[in-house]
Amino acid sequence: MSETVQIGVAKAGRIGYGFSDIAVVPDRRTRDAEDVSVSWSIDAFHFDLPVIGAPMDSASSPETVIALGRAGGLGVLDLEGLWTRYEDPTDAYRRIHEASDEDAGSVLQQVYAEPVKAELITARLAEIRAAGVTVAGALSPQRTQQFYQTVLDAGVDLFVIRGTTVSAEHVSNTTEPLNLKKFIYELDVPVIVGGAGTYTTALHLMRTGAAGVLAGFGGGATSSSIKTLGLRTPMATAVADVAGARRDYLDESGGRYVHVIADGSLGLAGDIPKAIAVGADAVMLGTALARASEAPGAGYHWGAEARHAKLPRGSRVNVGTAGSLDEVLFGPAHNADGKLNLIGALRKSMATTGYTDLKEFQKAPVAISHYEV
Amino acid sequence: MSETVQIGVAKAGRIGYGFSDIAVVPDRRTRDAEDVSVSWSIDAFHFDLPVIGAPMDSASSPETVIALGRAGGLGVLDLEGLWTRYEDPTDAYRRIHEASDEDAGSVLQQVYAEPVKAELITARLAEIRAAGVTVAGALSPQRTQQFYQTVLDAGVDLFVIRGTTVSAEHVSNTTEPLNLKKFIYELDVPVIVGGAGTYTTALHLMRTGAAGVLAGFGGGATSSSIKTLGLRTPMATAVADVAGARRDYLDESGGRYVHVIADGSLGLAGDIPKAIAVGADAVMLGTALARASEAPGAGYHWGAEARHAKLPRGSRVNVGTAGSLDEVLFGPAHNADGKLNLIGALRKSMATTGYTDLKEFQKAPVAISHYEV
Amino acid sequence: MSETVQIGVAKAGRIGYGFSDIAVVPDRRTRDAEDVSVSWSIDAFHFDLPVIGAPMDSASSPETVIALGRAGGLGVLDLEGLWTRYEDPTDAYRRIHEASDEDAGSVLQQVYAEPVKAELITARLAEIRAAGVTVAGALSPQRTQQFYQTVLDAGVDLFVIRGTTVSAEHVSNTTEPLNLKKFIYELDVPVIVGGAGTYTTALHLMRTGAAGVLAGFGGGATSSSIKTLGLRTPMATAVADVAGARRDYLDESGGRYVHVIADGSLGLAGDIPKAIAVGADAVMLGTALARASEAPGAGYHWGAEARHAKLPRGSRVNVGTAGSLDEVLFGPAHNADGKLNLIGALRKSMATTGYTDLKEFQKAPVAISHYEV
Amino acid sequence: MSETVQIGVAKAGRIGYGFSDIAVVPDRRTRDAEDVSVSWSIDAFHFDLPVIGAPMDSASSPETVIALGRAGGLGVLDLEGLWTRYEDPTDAYRRIHEASDEDAGSVLQQVYAEPVKAELITARLAEIRAAGVTVAGALSPQRTQQFYQTVLDAGVDLFVIRGTTVSAEHVSNTTEPLNLKKFIYELDVPVIVGGAGTYTTALHLMRTGAAGVLAGFGGGATSSSIKTLGLRTPMATAVADVAGARRDYLDESGGRYVHVIADGSLGLAGDIPKAIAVGADAVMLGTALARASEAPGAGYHWGAEARHAKLPRGSRVNVGTAGSLDEVLFGPAHNADGKLNLIGALRKSMATTGYTDLKEFQKAPVAISHYEV
Repeated sequence: MSETVQIGVAKAGRIGYGFSDIAVVPDRRTRDAEDVSVSWSIDAFHFDLPVIGAPMDSASSPETVIALGRAGGLGVLDLEGLWTRYEDPTDAYRRIHEASDEDAGSVLQQVYAEPVKAELITARLAEIRAAGVTVAGALSPQRTQQFYQTVLDAGVDLFVIRGTTVSAEHVSNTTEPLNLKKFIYELDVPVIVGGAGTYTTALHLMRTGAAGVLAGFGGGATSSSIKTLGLRTPMATAVADVAGARRDYLDESGGRYVHVIADGSLGLAGDIPKAIAVGADAVMLGTALARASEAPGAGYHWGAEARHAKLPRGSRVNVGTAGSLDEVLFGPAHNADGKLNLIGALRKSMATTGYTDLKEFQKAPVAISHYEV
Repeated sequence: MSETVQIGVAKAGRIGYGFSDIAVVPDRRTRDAEDVSVSWSIDAFHFDLPVIGAPMDSASSPETVIALGRAGGLGVLDLEGLWTRYEDPTDAYRRIHEASDEDAGSVLQQVYAEPVKAELITARLAEIRAAGVTVAGALSPQRTQQFYQTVLDAGVDLFVIRGTTVSAEHVSNTTEPLNLKKFIYELDVPVIVGGAGTYTTALHLMRTGAAGVLAGFGGGATSSSIKTLGLRTPMATAVADVAGARRDYLDESGGRYVHVIADGSLGLAGDIPKAIAVGADAVMLGTALARASEAPGAGYHWGAEARHAKLPRGSRVNVGTAGSLDEVLFGPAHNADGKLNLIGALRKSMATTGYTDLKEFQKAPVAISHYEV
Repeated sequence: MSETVQIGVAKAGRIGYGFSDIAVVPDRRTRDAEDVSVSWSIDAFHFDLPVIGAPMDSASSPETVIALGRAGGLGVLDLEGLWTRYEDPTDAYRRIHEASDEDAGSVLQQVYAEPVKAELITARLAEIRAAGVTVAGALSPQRTQQFYQTVLDAGVDLFVIRGTTVSAEHVSNTTEPLNLKKFIYELDVPVIVGGAGTYTTALHLMRTGAAGVLAGFGGGATSSSIKTLGLRTPMATAVADVAGARRDYLDESGGRYVHVIADGSLGLAGDIPKAIAVGADAVMLGTALARASEAPGAGYHWGAEARHAKLPRGSRVNVGTAGSLDEVLFGPAHNADGKLNLIGALRKSMATTGYTDLKEFQKAPVAISHYEV
Repeated sequence: MSETVQIGVAKAGRIGYGFSDIAVVPDRRTRDAEDVSVSWSIDAFHFDLPVIGAPMDSASSPETVIALGRAGGLGVLDLEGLWTRYEDPTDAYRRIHEASDEDAGSVLQQVYAEPVKAELITARLAEIRAAGVTVAGALSPQRTQQFYQTVLDAGVDLFVIRGTTVSAEHVSNTTEPLNLKKFIYELDVPVIVGGAGTYTTALHLMRTGAAGVLAGFGGGATSSSIKTLGLRTPMATAVADVAGARRDYLDESGGRYVHVIADGSLGLAGDIPKAIAVGADAVMLGTALARASEAPGAGYHWGAEARHAKLPRGSRVNVGTAGSLDEVLFGPAHNADGKLNLIGALRKSMATTGYTDLKEFQKAPVAISHYEV
């Protein structure tokens, strides 16, 4: 646990650290970047890169999901997004791109008012499967009961349940909530679930049988949950807490290793080694992939929390276009803005600190420093 | 108590936290926002919303006091403001609206030089009573002796004594100060009094028999007490301290529960759950309500401390207009700037952290984090 | 002592706090501002106000020194400044006022290249004495030996030795340094000496027999000692340390009370109560007085450290003009920018926290809070 | 060691401090600046100034290396830079100067694509030797094996191996890495090696027989390693850690004193005394020297990390031109921006705190303070 301090007489709080508060510190040994492995496996699936594409319409289309898969990562389509609401989402995207900053929120609400269609879920997943890459789709906890059978019938390799906050125990007076434990037990595909921001939430999610837990709240750059809800999960602390749950659950379960996937506030290349150094096994990227020229957001980026009809907790933000997906992942970069060659940077970071694989790199020393970048 | 550190050899100070230093952290359980109750009761009065309108002329006219009451909250009229100085304050408001930034301070001083009239206090309170909502009016400690009989004769349900700092023991060499304990004892309406920023001040105010204590200094956005007086009460610490006094006084008094109302620095939707999570029972809102299209400030906001003839400690600030009072409270919001759907946001915040009522929500885990919003 | 932490393996450092890190916190009792005394005495001299004008050419001319004395404070003329270098400094001031930002440093160097003239020291002090106010003049430690006899012959009530850093033990291989203890012993006027930033420096200065010690480094707004020399004395910590030396020296000396005068970083009204609350007996003001319409700097402000021929450690800064000296001290203010009615603000701050005199106000509770003003 | 705190359940980190977090604090004694010595010796070489020029093409040409040597410091040529890639680098410099901000990264990559030529290494070093100053050249760890024989044959007095991070134990699967210990043992010139950011790395480098260790990461102003790699070494902590290794190695080796040279984040005059006060014996300057009118960068500054073909970790930055090299070192300065008279400022800083030589000055008290400069 991080330090607990008294806020006042009747309330204590824990100090939390974000990625911007920390840095990885080189120590002792160095290596060649070529000798470093950044590969990652979850369940039976092996990936050359520890990169999962965030199921966000700005970053992930069937096309970019396939491209990311071919590049060595895992693409995940949002199964409640534009691609399953519209047969052809071109016009919907166009409306979002063309909206003024002031109107963007309302336009998102209008565009996403169109219902999700089960047959489009089936079609999109089939398209991805046909490309020969690992197939993964994401639903929100709210929609999982409604659509998961459609998803299973369509066939997925990995199933992602992603909300800003997901708990193992959702309580509802009006509807029968998703029983995650029962659901995951009955499913025969591995499930990645989150976001979870604390040790306890993560431990409970691990006990449901999840193969992976998303640590964080997702959609860092596009989220305004602190302004609107007063909620925030400082990411470095969240990842380190969830990694603590992984360690303790490993013991408690007699050896089940649940993967920790950092999700949120990973906009720059340098954030990825930070996430792994505090305990992540892999990262889910939104902003970084939304900057690819192939990204359907065309330089704009938004998350599911921005489309709520009455209470949006996020915005469309302009992240710009930095280069092709290949350049985003593998470079070459021509400047040091941290937007291109994410994988080269991760390798270099690991090599400079002397680590050969991601699991070892979780032990890298970290400094807390508040002075400006 | 929060941590005490040495500032230097001869002086120690306590670390204080503001709302911007903290965040509520989701943990363990989630709920449906529909299952959450945000109702609040003080004395015999029940409110659907834990929202009290600040007695500030920019936010509260008789009309908006009534509207807030009808919406489920409690409106409070400033009984020393424009509505009791002017039969028709239209022109006074117009002068304030039209003043340049440079002249605004002087114009406030001129407009508020007009004396308060007892008969207007009577008339305004009658107007509110006629609307069928809970009637509440506020006086400053300095004016309470002069006007409280007028207020009582006019009839109020709740009486608010509000200054930037109010103590149970005001000492004066020239006038007989208000004896709060005697005053409250003799009054037959419940009294809400403050601002109080520390455990001790609050405990002493509770011992006077107050039904509620305003925690903080009021008028956060409009106050410059740090620049002018060197005074500041970091709000999260203040609320947690006053909540500590509530707990200890509950024991000391054998069961009298004095309500803690956070007052100040509550400009965004997300600040409200923060205030409750550190111990508030309800919130007094200024800026947030001054943004309503019905607000008499017409997009400007100012507090009582800005009208002092020789030493203003606050300013007229431009907060803009965000939507109707109904939209401010209940939405729909079309973006995530935290200005609309405050109640929906509070419900969602409580639901995301798994709490069903405000009292329970005071237990929500809180993180201290200095990184940017 | 404030907290000591390890910077790294081989070095520890003390945490230091500036005035901007702290706030005075109202607690328990309140009072009428009218009942508050802000008077101050040092040696046989009584002042209605605890305000000493900084001996800086931008703030202090013979005319403003007299005006401040008549207003109840203590004016101090820089006896090495323009008024003792030029029979008529009008043209010198004009050159400084008219210099571009880029040229200001060079112009200061040129204007101050003119030698100090003993006869002008005599004349200026006579002018002040003739006005019937307490006469005080300041020399730097470097010039004290050269000119103090002139000063004494001219007649002063209080003698100020002021440098950015003054120690009781100056070591020199080339010149015989000023032996402060011997010097002060032989002098028959009380001496105020500083700046001192630490407990030890202050204690040593107190042992020389000084009547008052300047706590801090002087010329806060105009100083760049951190950029140029890497030196800084966080003011709140410095004042609290020097106040600690006062307390210990009081015991060691069997009852000699050496006054602590905060000098530096006191630009806004709210900084003055902060300085006293951490232990100051009085304040030396530069920026605040340089904003008076009577100030010879005409809206510009600069300190002695800005005129060094080869290594300026300060700059001419534009502080603007806020009002007459009377308005700066006593108001009325028309806004809350902290530039006018410094004394009214100090009274209000003391009244709000319930203290009746400056000595008592040194006990006021203080909070450390890093969130924005 | 600085304080270790928990970031979260499974990860701890050390608090790190940068130069901007600290200040030297005057204490007790003062001296005349003229009585202060800033001379420094390493191995058999004596320097009047503790200043080493960074081997960066923007700051160091053969001409400025000679000029710095004549001024009393040590110039170091980058033996993999423009001067050893181009017979006449004029055109290469011109292309870099003329590139737009957007293109600068690509232009650097293109210009540095030209191979390093052994014969130019020989010629440049001969040119410096002919001028009669101490001859020093720098190679990166990657190129040391390829070119060191050329360097030795050409003749150097001091050999610098400088990378952003250098370890005593580089591991490679594909090439035989440089065995630093063996290399230094066989070499008959003293070696300065780094950057090292931690106690352990530094201790291991000291054990290789190095005469000096560069503490830090180099090229502070031009580096983006935090954005791109997530790596950062807070400089004050790094220097204090490396100084700790010096102390412990002194004991372990029975008296071998390895010099600690702060390298990075030393852009202003005031940063130099800070570096020494936390333990440095000397400083390596990039930005400060790149501001000299003689600097080949002509107001632009860039480091080796900016020229990487696929993953630049630095940028060309515009540092401007402040004055001649002589003015940069010895003044006169005409303002207080910390760019001129670095040596005068160091002397003044030492004098103000009462220290007579650099070794003593390492004991100066330091404050940690986060308020603005």
